[in-house]
Amino acid sequence: MRPMNWLDQIKWDADGLVPVIAQEQSSGDVVMFAWMNRAALARTQELGEAVYWSRSRAKLWHKGEESGHTQTVHEMRLDCDNDVLLLKITQNGQSPGTPGIACHTGRHSCFYQRLEQGDGLDWQAVEPVLKDPGQIYK
Amino acid sequence: MRPMNWLDQIKWDADGLVPVIAQEQSSGDVVMFAWMNRAALARTQELGEAVYWSRSRAKLWHKGEESGHTQTVHEMRLDCDNDVLLLKITQNGQSPGTPGIACHTGRHSCFYQRLEQGDGLDWQAVEPVLKDPGQIYK
Repeated sequence: MRPMNWLDQIKWDADGLVPVIAQEQSSGDVVMFAWMNRAALARTQELGEAVYWSRSRAKLWHKGEESGHTQTVHEMRLDCDNDVLLLKITQNGQSPGTPGIACHTGRHSCFYQRLEQGDGLDWQAVEPVLKDPGQIYK
Repeated sequence: MRPMNWLDQIKWDADGLVPVIAQEQSSGDVVMFAWMNRAALARTQELGEAVYWSRSRAKLWHKGEESGHTQTVHEMRLDCDNDVLLLKITQNGQSPGTPGIACHTGRHSCFYQRLEQGDGLDWQAVEPVLKDPGQIYK
């Protein structure tokens, strides 16, 4: 009997997708969250770079295809329910020694808004823009 | 004009949910992925402990309510699209100095399966069971 294909072990949701967390291997920072379908995950494995499924554009999205900010995938993890992926990545595209830019706003991480208590509770941007998005997406 | 409520700034999905990544503050380990609805997030903020929405049981789920493995929430982050949350947590319930158990299998993290190249590609469990689930859920 042929063993179950590694792609078949994943519990794809009703839309054929799985949530994906991208964590920078060097810093441990969670930099992004996106989705993959079967083709995206297969391509990620072949290429060694993150390829997501863009739900808004309804097509495969090789991260960095426009910005140059590709993600080298070092390791892929699957959770206990077989329905969430965690990628250990290097965020490429910046000069060595400077933080990679994962976010389309030009920030290191997409998770740059922190819940803060001021007059009331509010989400505050707490990470700097490292590069003008206008310079990233020409 | 009254400022927008922090809960209203979140783009809840069609089911009124938002994906949530739980990251251990001390180690940086991503230990869990779950979902919250508006009530779960409000309760999490009030309590300072993670309260998720259990999709399978269709009810609020105060993480650790059965196991004692609660999660103290130190910080909440929202992503650039306002539709994914990242929590910085301490995973409670174990003796000081020993790794917390976030996973219902008795492991530190839910992401314990790694894609490995052997005869073929396969997901392999690479993290130890720290406590027998039979001892956790009595």
